[in-house]
Amino acid sequence: MALKSFVEVLPDSHFPLENLPFGIFKPTQQVGEGATTEPRPGVAIGDFVLDLSVIASAGLFNGPNLNNSDCFSQTSLNKFLSMGRPAWKEARSTIQKLLSADEPTLRDNASLREKSILPMNKVEMLLPTVIGDYTDFFSSMHHAKNCGIIFRGPENPIVPHWFHLPIAYHGRASSIVISGTDIIRPRGQGRPVGNSPPYFGPSVKLDFELEMAAVVGPGNELGKPVDVNEAADHIFGLVLMNDWSARDIQAWEYVPLGPFLGKSFGTTISPWIVTLDALEPFACDAPKQEPHPLPYLTEKKSKNYDISLEVVRIKPTEQEHSSVVTKSNFNHLYWTLTQQLAHHTINGCNLRPGDLLGTGTISGPEPESMGCLLELTWNGKKPLSLNGSTRKFLEDGDEVVITGYCKGNGYKVGFGTCSGKVVPAPI
Amino acid sequence: MALKSFVEVLPDSHFPLENLPFGIFKPTQQVGEGATTEPRPGVAIGDFVLDLSVIASAGLFNGPNLNNSDCFSQTSLNKFLSMGRPAWKEARSTIQKLLSADEPTLRDNASLREKSILPMNKVEMLLPTVIGDYTDFFSSMHHAKNCGIIFRGPENPIVPHWFHLPIAYHGRASSIVISGTDIIRPRGQGRPVGNSPPYFGPSVKLDFELEMAAVVGPGNELGKPVDVNEAADHIFGLVLMNDWSARDIQAWEYVPLGPFLGKSFGTTISPWIVTLDALEPFACDAPKQEPHPLPYLTEKKSKNYDISLEVVRIKPTEQEHSSVVTKSNFNHLYWTLTQQLAHHTINGCNLRPGDLLGTGTISGPEPESMGCLLELTWNGKKPLSLNGSTRKFLEDGDEVVITGYCKGNGYKVGFGTCSGKVVPAPI
Repeated sequence: MALKSFVEVLPDSHFPLENLPFGIFKPTQQVGEGATTEPRPGVAIGDFVLDLSVIASAGLFNGPNLNNSDCFSQTSLNKFLSMGRPAWKEARSTIQKLLSADEPTLRDNASLREKSILPMNKVEMLLPTVIGDYTDFFSSMHHAKNCGIIFRGPENPIVPHWFHLPIAYHGRASSIVISGTDIIRPRGQGRPVGNSPPYFGPSVKLDFELEMAAVVGPGNELGKPVDVNEAADHIFGLVLMNDWSARDIQAWEYVPLGPFLGKSFGTTISPWIVTLDALEPFACDAPKQEPHPLPYLTEKKSKNYDISLEVVRIKPTEQEHSSVVTKSNFNHLYWTLTQQLAHHTINGCNLRPGDLLGTGTISGPEPESMGCLLELTWNGKKPLSLNGSTRKFLEDGDEVVITGYCKGNGYKVGFGTCSGKVVPAPI
Repeated sequence: MALKSFVEVLPDSHFPLENLPFGIFKPTQQVGEGATTEPRPGVAIGDFVLDLSVIASAGLFNGPNLNNSDCFSQTSLNKFLSMGRPAWKEARSTIQKLLSADEPTLRDNASLREKSILPMNKVEMLLPTVIGDYTDFFSSMHHAKNCGIIFRGPENPIVPHWFHLPIAYHGRASSIVISGTDIIRPRGQGRPVGNSPPYFGPSVKLDFELEMAAVVGPGNELGKPVDVNEAADHIFGLVLMNDWSARDIQAWEYVPLGPFLGKSFGTTISPWIVTLDALEPFACDAPKQEPHPLPYLTEKKSKNYDISLEVVRIKPTEQEHSSVVTKSNFNHLYWTLTQQLAHHTINGCNLRPGDLLGTGTISGPEPESMGCLLELTWNGKKPLSLNGSTRKFLEDGDEVVITGYCKGNGYKVGFGTCSGKVVPAPI
């Protein structure tokens, strides 16, 4: 049975009292005396945002961790994330109580309610954290296999070390943008035909990648690895991510140092960080790993989450409606979030609050669950039909929308959407 | 003929009036009333540091760009870097004049002189910028060729696209440390022997890489590439860099997404940023590029710099003296700094003030000019002799010191040193 808030939450909402995801917003217009349009932390409830800076100023965070903290008067969540799980749990339980239907403190205080609860359509969402470093993993076996077959042929499509460690690369932090930001088609070089010079111009193989990303909590000192069984305490929560990729640029540049300009022109994340605490009811067993991982990657309990990544819609400009392109699930990942984080730090590498760890494209075993056009159209060989038009790769004007949620008993714990529209390359 | 300062500058100093490199320091003890130990910007002169926060407070930056700026009361150089070349030139000429032997303003003001000029051994140097993103290129042809032969054999050691674009990867920003910081030997996986599980433990192939890195100035907006002929205005200056590398970890992990844990445990930079303005007298022609680069990489004038990277010394704990291991020169680079920067942004990727662009290992054509042990010992096959002891790769206790300078007529424009000592892996 769903919990009940005094704020209206529609049955299909991604943001009931069970979720309470954190983000950074600013009001699109100044409301009331003394109110500012500075960015500040908020929590989503139904179609509203609870302004945590107002709640904190009102003295309603009165637990031992948050009592005297200024973490909710910051313009990013980094400080709150650095405080760790005890502070996160305290914030969640305080907010859940405050928003409950049977709790009068906020419900019956009209002035505070008006100041602290804003309609979502009156705010603009911003990047929730200052992202020091962004890492992208490659943790779906189905994606690794399909890419291997496409790029290197059907013999041994997956490199042998893939089964021993969660492969990853450093991504570009500066070009991470919030959902709703246009993506400018990148220009770059592509593989030459015969003896011609390389292709140069707007990418002709622009793709999306259906991913999720973990947002790092306290982090670790340089030289001090995080134990895999304690790694969950370093993960605040998850967002949706679209790791836009220019396959022609990527294919020509990536040997031997990995993806660079094929990815660094833009990466979109959803604005609301859904906490691991909210996802806990949807935890499920991670897939069996064979060969057995080395001790530093062996977990007492290995967890995935049952998150339906139900729709990647592509909406061409000329069409009114968008088409469902793929349906996948977070639980298709082979390597767990905690294994990814422990591996990342085993060499002593330090993680900082707000760092982003992408999962890599989340493809499932069926053709309908492939997480990018490279796989879905088999590198452009099998165009995709979208309500009459077709796509090998993305065209200018196409809008890609990713969404995802967990299905509870009478409610959803959802991620909202992660969207972006492709606009033409500069001339 | 060398310029003359009223501050003593020994003939062999890296920091004469012609240099004036910028850094961030903090006094190791509080000096005088009201003085703090907060990090602040400084400029090196001989064995002294000029405290720019004091000079700014005294109202001595009175040109149009710096007059009312608080850029020198910041704890990093990012704000100053964001102001661009007019501000950089104004700061340089103001400081050069203030420190001149024949300029009385500072010379004859004992109280201000005492407050603003600190002995280098009374300050601690810190990272000069907040580094949003760190990119590492692969721009020495000799290094690319040697690595290709070692890893893939003598046929086609250099991938074909290497000659069409400056290959690069994103590095880890969080683990960049300032010269003098110990480097903890990383643990990680290495390639398995036969059917055994992969090796796991402290890296047995720890290496240094002799590099330099450009520090980015104003940067560019997402989606707006920087023209190659304007790219120099986005480079503030250069530092020395040691891109420590664990070759066993790197060799096992790097296909297909590039280096990750083999590098991310630590990267050392020198503290003083030598400006392009100070390096200008040492500009030289870049090597001829064949095939001719695409138009977006074609420069009206293609510049390298004649910077002797004279010594990479390894000092084993048990020895009193260090040994010269290699002598190289910045002018061995095939791709110029400006081509690197233009390529980095051609897809629209945004650079931010303080970003670091490493050159990659700077190896020359001769065996004595190879920039890392992988090359110098040919992957451990030909151990190096160091005053009696030998090295295939670095051992615990080894200290690696990189230095570099340009030789002027009667003076040096130098980079100081970039050093780090290897300490044992955690148990």
